[in-house]
Amino acid sequence: MRALVTGGAGFIGSHLIDRLVARGDHVVVLDNLSSGNLAFIQGHLDSGDAVLVNGDLRSLDDVKQAMAMDIDCVYHLAANPDIRLGTRVTDTDLNQGTVATYNVVEAMRLAGVKKIAFASSSVVYGENAPMPTPENHGPCMPISLYGASKQAGEGLISSWVGTFGLQAWIFRFANVVGARGTHGVIFDFIHKLKNDPTRLEVLGNGLQEKSYMEVGDCVDAILHVMATTDEPLNLFNLGSHDTASVRRIAEIVVEVTGCADARIEYTGGDRGWAGDIPRARLAIERMVDSGFDVRMNSEDAIRHTATCLLEEIGLEE
Amino acid sequence: MRALVTGGAGFIGSHLIDRLVARGDHVVVLDNLSSGNLAFIQGHLDSGDAVLVNGDLRSLDDVKQAMAMDIDCVYHLAANPDIRLGTRVTDTDLNQGTVATYNVVEAMRLAGVKKIAFASSSVVYGENAPMPTPENHGPCMPISLYGASKQAGEGLISSWVGTFGLQAWIFRFANVVGARGTHGVIFDFIHKLKNDPTRLEVLGNGLQEKSYMEVGDCVDAILHVMATTDEPLNLFNLGSHDTASVRRIAEIVVEVTGCADARIEYTGGDRGWAGDIPRARLAIERMVDSGFDVRMNSEDAIRHTATCLLEEIGLEE
Repeated sequence: MRALVTGGAGFIGSHLIDRLVARGDHVVVLDNLSSGNLAFIQGHLDSGDAVLVNGDLRSLDDVKQAMAMDIDCVYHLAANPDIRLGTRVTDTDLNQGTVATYNVVEAMRLAGVKKIAFASSSVVYGENAPMPTPENHGPCMPISLYGASKQAGEGLISSWVGTFGLQAWIFRFANVVGARGTHGVIFDFIHKLKNDPTRLEVLGNGLQEKSYMEVGDCVDAILHVMATTDEPLNLFNLGSHDTASVRRIAEIVVEVTGCADARIEYTGGDRGWAGDIPRARLAIERMVDSGFDVRMNSEDAIRHTATCLLEEIGLEE
Repeated sequence: MRALVTGGAGFIGSHLIDRLVARGDHVVVLDNLSSGNLAFIQGHLDSGDAVLVNGDLRSLDDVKQAMAMDIDCVYHLAANPDIRLGTRVTDTDLNQGTVATYNVVEAMRLAGVKKIAFASSSVVYGENAPMPTPENHGPCMPISLYGASKQAGEGLISSWVGTFGLQAWIFRFANVVGARGTHGVIFDFIHKLKNDPTRLEVLGNGLQEKSYMEVGDCVDAILHVMATTDEPLNLFNLGSHDTASVRRIAEIVVEVTGCADARIEYTGGDRGWAGDIPRARLAIERMVDSGFDVRMNSEDAIRHTATCLLEEIGLEE
């Protein structure tokens, strides 16, 4: 199999490529290295198991160039990774999310590529969903611009399935954490403690409560579900069975980093920023019924991530 | 009140403006006249009750220019009206739908305009929804590119509500028909009979069965719902209580046009084109519970429309 992984030099993409190469796939990576890191995939580039197309998803020509390389299946993971950015810059998610996804499915149509897996997100559900939230919850009313772009991407893919015969797997991710993380709350906390080990500022009141999934579990779930389902359009929540509060994450990071004296300070309010969803937990029965279950619960995933990122970032200057 | 109506020179937009002017609103029309018709609103332009900004929704600058005219409420109706076009040209709905809606909400944010009504569509539900389909159906998986752009528009508006404090009314329309129609099955049938009064070709097997709403009912429903609801985000299906088959529409059009000898021929297949949804009926309890009900059922609306369009189009060259 020849796979195209968009955002393949990024956090989740690079872990997925580890698995694809391990099972013998050849991988084309399409990444503009804006938030990805070449070091994450350098070994696969050196071994010849992967090749990099240094291109921008906002350019249909760039995507067509990658799609012309005899691709069997597309894993479309590229996106702006910073949800908060939408509160300040409003066209990033439109261009790097919605328009990029249009370019991907359009290039697939033009090249005759039929299979796509898409990294969507639990944030498409918005904030009034029942918890745990099943895949058939409606209406989906995202409150962040990032969520709007993920929903738009789902719709584009769904319409290319209905109109042009694509086959698709749409995965709505919980908070995915792990080694090589480039953003998110654990990453932020370690950087804050590196800057000042005596205090840790937490956005909101710390009672935000979400589900966390370790990235290895996430990419294994993707490949398991794709191997065991075959509808024209397959929709799966991917997450763990429980949640952790931001307060608990702060405690774990303080513990793992050894900053035991750090004062944890809360900015207050029920959410970290406008468009943040205070509580999120996905119903994962469909994933479990497909025969896959996670190895780590939310706290395990957070502790593992804090340990990995501490090593990658380091507390010393 | 000062209203901005995008697509105001179009089919639904011009009927809405009739009502807005009748109740004393001043109306700014933003339309590029690509499918709209100046004649539909000429009276209101002549009387000074409406002004036209001849601009393109794909240009943020054009939308900002209209939004700067002291607007209280936006009625965002502009879109590519031809659902079938997406099977041939794939970026029309992206640009005239999704990007246009981004430009509208972004211009609202920049100008401090807070209220928006949005014309969405029953096609966001896709084709596996239960019938009648309630607003909380999920997952919404549109099969047409037009449907994908309406879903993307809903998500953009929802995220601007959640992030920037907009207030929104999202209306998912059944098939809206009536005088001044510029597209759709009744319009097509009359043009076909004008071209050849001896035969009428019907796309599909004619068993497609959908709900039709008369445009006067539709715009009255919009204004009634907006006057009686006040959540940050208000979502309503708008439709009639029943359905009509394409076969029945063909019979009614043949009867109304007096082409009693026309042979009705079916191209076969369960749908008119790739991305067409064969059966659609909306649950309208929310609309009815708000205190509004339709005056015409589907057949009444179709017969009324055929009569109006026959007069507008004429059968003679």
